Amino acid sequence: MDIISGGVTAAKGFEAAGAEANVKYKNRKDMALIYSQIPCKAAGVFTSNVVKAAPVLWDKNVVATSPYVQAVVVNSGIANACTGVKGYEYCKQTAQSTATELGIPENSVLIASTGVIGMQLPIDKITGGVSKLARAKERSEYAGTMAAEAIMTTDTVSKQVAVTIEIDGVTVTIGGMCKGSGMIHPNMCTMLGFVTTDIAISKELLQEALSEDIQDTFNMVSIDGDTSTNDTLIVLANGMAGNPEIVSKDENYYKFTEALHYVDETLAKKMAGDGEGATALFETKVIHAASKEDAKILSKAVICSSLTKAAIFGHDANWGRILCALGYSGVNFDPENIELFFEGENGRIQIYKDGAATDYSEEEASAILSEPEVRVLVDMKMGGAQATAWGCDLTYDYIKINADYRS
Amino acid sequence: MDIISGGVTAAKGFEAAGAEANVKYKNRKDMALIYSQIPCKAAGVFTSNVVKAAPVLWDKNVVATSPYVQAVVVNSGIANACTGVKGYEYCKQTAQSTATELGIPENSVLIASTGVIGMQLPIDKITGGVSKLARAKERSEYAGTMAAEAIMTTDTVSKQVAVTIEIDGVTVTIGGMCKGSGMIHPNMCTMLGFVTTDIAISKELLQEALSEDIQDTFNMVSIDGDTSTNDTLIVLANGMAGNPEIVSKDENYYKFTEALHYVDETLAKKMAGDGEGATALFETKVIHAASKEDAKILSKAVICSSLTKAAIFGHDANWGRILCALGYSGVNFDPENIELFFEGENGRIQIYKDGAATDYSEEEASAILSEPEVRVLVDMKMGGAQATAWGCDLTYDYIKINADYRS
Repeated sequence: MDIISGGVTAAKGFEAAGAEANVKYKNRKDMALIYSQIPCKAAGVFTSNVVKAAPVLWDKNVVATSPYVQAVVVNSGIANACTGVKGYEYCKQTAQSTATELGIPENSVLIASTGVIGMQLPIDKITGGVSKLARAKERSEYAGTMAAEAIMTTDTVSKQVAVTIEIDGVTVTIGGMCKGSGMIHPNMCTMLGFVTTDIAISKELLQEALSEDIQDTFNMVSIDGDTSTNDTLIVLANGMAGNPEIVSKDENYYKFTEALHYVDETLAKKMAGDGEGATALFETKVIHAASKEDAKILSKAVICSSLTKAAIFGHDANWGRILCALGYSGVNFDPENIELFFEGENGRIQIYKDGAATDYSEEEASAILSEPEVRVLVDMKMGGAQATAWGCDLTYDYIKINADYRS
Repeated sequence: MDIISGGVTAAKGFEAAGAEANVKYKNRKDMALIYSQIPCKAAGVFTSNVVKAAPVLWDKNVVATSPYVQAVVVNSGIANACTGVKGYEYCKQTAQSTATELGIPENSVLIASTGVIGMQLPIDKITGGVSKLARAKERSEYAGTMAAEAIMTTDTVSKQVAVTIEIDGVTVTIGGMCKGSGMIHPNMCTMLGFVTTDIAISKELLQEALSEDIQDTFNMVSIDGDTSTNDTLIVLANGMAGNPEIVSKDENYYKFTEALHYVDETLAKKMAGDGEGATALFETKVIHAASKEDAKILSKAVICSSLTKAAIFGHDANWGRILCALGYSGVNFDPENIELFFEGENGRIQIYKDGAATDYSEEEASAILSEPEVRVLVDMKMGGAQATAWGCDLTYDYIKINADYRS
């Protein structure tokens, strides 16, 4: 696998655009288009929140019933969630307008929205934006970046990744972008993520690969414990790489899933590291747990702990909060038997052993907690399972951003 | 039931004291004693965290095996959690020293600690503090207040309550105090709470009354989602009111549980309203849920939502975050069918109905969110169950307090 530059336009046949539609934000791009020159197999995973945004309902239906998808239209600023019948109608109008502009069927258009819940979309601005996007779309890395920037809300950086793999002598490319900064605690998938690939693969295997991979990637991220109404992750595969279509779980399938895992994990980590107000990515790896499920629950409990997150912001090695979070996670263990480490660029230090603190150096621990990527390692000494979860620190800026997000 | 002034010394025969022992804090009281002139029946509920502080282990054993309890010693500053064998030994030494000073058996002494996890207690200072407490204890409202102040950590106010009820012509008094400001998401009970009463009641019924009542009081509070290692709630009953001992669930038992409920709920709400950095108590009541369990899960999801808490700090009627929290709670419902209200001193306004926002006034909504007690009412329109949960807003000061709590 080779890591290359670019995002959703890296794979063959994919075009993109970003445009200013003034949906809610002013003087910035707020609508994005991903377009494939030929129809794609599509797979998607969506929020488990009972309260689902209108575009989530739209997309679930399209992915389930439509044989092909050819375009995705995204707006930032307004989430089109809790908007009733009218909100769904606006989704349909957006898809119709996109279909007309691009000359493709209405049921091959996916929609995604992110922003404030409860506001109705200004549909004229949306359809105006669709026209701009249709004119602006192009097959270039620049266009992919424009799209990645247009879907940002409180994100401070756009998030893209692309890789290539060789399958039966042909080069297959997978690229992706995502956004997500607040209301991030994916349960089925993340806020908004889009992966495009030119691989030829059956729709069933594409969905299976995606559904399986998010369990260890996007679903292991939490910024604030709030599972959004809009979580959507879409993979589009147009087959233009020219490989023989993957129709069984052969060696090629696993080559693909390995690359997809890298793309998903990279996007998930970028999202965690750019959590609202965050100054650091906070990774917790749990090893030697009794089961995979236990390892996931334990690692997620730590990265979700408000107190631990605040301590990391303060570069304070208040490790007792980590023990506390492991303890209330719901997983049973013997606190006397587990071990805790901090891992930094210059190596690892042991913090806790035999039920009490080691004689670690506070300066050394605080130095590790001052790095841009803070890593905690927990050895449960109970079995062979492991999991990693990603979050971020909890800062003044998180409060600032969220105390008055709507204005 | 009459509400009276005072706290743990309100009931007959109870003495208290607060003292400066310099356990970790300087120039403030940091140790408290509750003492009954005669032995008490004791009931307790403790943290469900797998990582239990040494005093929790000590108390669980005493409450389970000792027929009577006569004293409770509390220190603030250091939690004596994650302190291994030595931590438990220090508990024993504290109990021994208290037993000697007061002339009571070692197994009639309960211990509670709150503060930093992972540090060892300075045992000489603790035993020095015990001597001071034994000399200072007295039967006065002032002494109760001294004790309530001594157990504070990041609390900004001490928390006490007392009530009287009539049982078979005699006056029975119940008083209590608690502390709790951060790491508050009780699961079995709160950080530290102590209730004293002169009622005569069997030990079994006292425990049953307590265990049942916390489900609707302390267990419905969350400040930051972190379930502490030290959660402890103790009720001591010395029988000095002179009522015929309550040994069955008769009318008198329910009179007592009603009063105990008031005491527990009042302390729980005081704790929520004084959450670390909080500017407001945040109450969410869910009515017409399909089951009591659903109502609890839904109301707790709302008061635990970081985004909702931040919006309340900003007095921003960002009600979509409430819908979002209800939606990811795990309870199934039809978002089109529920209704949402804000309740203020001057009445109630409807925010959400039929799947979308009403045309409520933003100014009116923001005014309600600016009150010191913010109330959200959710009507699920599904059944007859209801529950109320209490939390607080999420503020800059929460971050300030917790980014460097140890220093």
